[in-house]
Amino acid sequence: LHCYSLIHDDMPCMDNDDYRRGQPSCHRRFDEHTALLAGDALNTAAFEVVAQAALPAESRVCAAQALARGAGARGMLFGQELDKRFETVRATEAELLSLHRHKTGALILTAVQLGAAAAPGGDAVLAPLERYAAELGLVFQIVDDILDVTSTLDALGKPTNSDAQNDKTTFVTLYGLAGARDLAARHNKAALRALDDVRADTAFLREMAGELLQRQK
Amino acid sequence: LHCYSLIHDDMPCMDNDDYRRGQPSCHRRFDEHTALLAGDALNTAAFEVVAQAALPAESRVCAAQALARGAGARGMLFGQELDKRFETVRATEAELLSLHRHKTGALILTAVQLGAAAAPGGDAVLAPLERYAAELGLVFQIVDDILDVTSTLDALGKPTNSDAQNDKTTFVTLYGLAGARDLAARHNKAALRALDDVRADTAFLREMAGELLQRQK
Repeated sequence: LHCYSLIHDDMPCMDNDDYRRGQPSCHRRFDEHTALLAGDALNTAAFEVVAQAALPAESRVCAAQALARGAGARGMLFGQELDKRFETVRATEAELLSLHRHKTGALILTAVQLGAAAAPGGDAVLAPLERYAAELGLVFQIVDDILDVTSTLDALGKPTNSDAQNDKTTFVTLYGLAGARDLAARHNKAALRALDDVRADTAFLREMAGELLQRQK
Repeated sequence: LHCYSLIHDDMPCMDNDDYRRGQPSCHRRFDEHTALLAGDALNTAAFEVVAQAALPAESRVCAAQALARGAGARGMLFGQELDKRFETVRATEAELLSLHRHKTGALILTAVQLGAAAAPGGDAVLAPLERYAAELGLVFQIVDDILDVTSTLDALGKPTNSDAQNDKTTFVTLYGLAGARDLAARHNKAALRALDDVRADTAFLREMAGELLQRQK
């Protein structure tokens, strides 16, 4: 599902990006109609994977609902629409938060919900996991904005300085580089605090939060 | 799901059609990025509808699997890819059949499978229903090729003569107008014969087969 969103997001009518993960983006390597259909196919395949998972039917239905909610018109796709809108209209801080809560936050939230749907007793830890995911989503996006300013095409695998070129409001334009780093660290701490309420092994989730904060690409 | 497929199919990188159902197509009425996201949203929404249906979880999972299979890379989207390929390469008769079996046939088959998944005892009539759907899919496409030659933009709600302009192989170029009409009638009869093996009320399915054969738009 994430790959589908990247393939469509790179297309000329969206962000028109030529590189992704250090390689030509799908429509550059192949062509636009291939990118359109490949994205469509991966979107559909995500639901096929969920529907065929080795889990009770109830869990699979629950997972499919979470995926549709997070990826659909009230989740990630609404974020994409806001992202496009704020290319021409300047976003306020509240609008920027809403944009990212939908665009990347919804999918990270979904990932956590899918884990909870698959785990026996997952319902009991869903609420703190959802708080963790919301904070993690913000960390991811703040770091993304920082890397767009501080990294290079070679290190990042995709073009940098694209936000400034597109005159976009980002966490860096709002708070400066040091302020954005502070903010990322604070949301990282809040994510870890949320995990204190999860009665299960959270080592992996803590490690992932740390990696997202420190990532260089 | 059908609307999503039409919206993406009309886009400039696919068929580049300006009209649909007598109105400007989505990317003409709005813009390309809206058409891309609207199609994506409808694709996702189709799975949400299935996952939330008022049916046992097992039936919903079965329906989601059928939908993913029929609409995905081994179904409708493969048909779209073949359709695009045969814009530049001339299709043989076998390839034309494969194209339509995937492009429209897979989705009509899915509709029948969804009905069977939702009906108590649907499994018992699935095989003849699938034969019915396969024949119906061919009737639909043959009539589509006929109307492209014999109808008008006003009557059809979309441009006509587009196949000839694109130098496409169709059932009309293969068999002529009279031959194509004959072929449609034969597949219609085969669809009705398949329903003889369904021990249930098939009046609606028979009526729909008749309507598809006679349709003027």
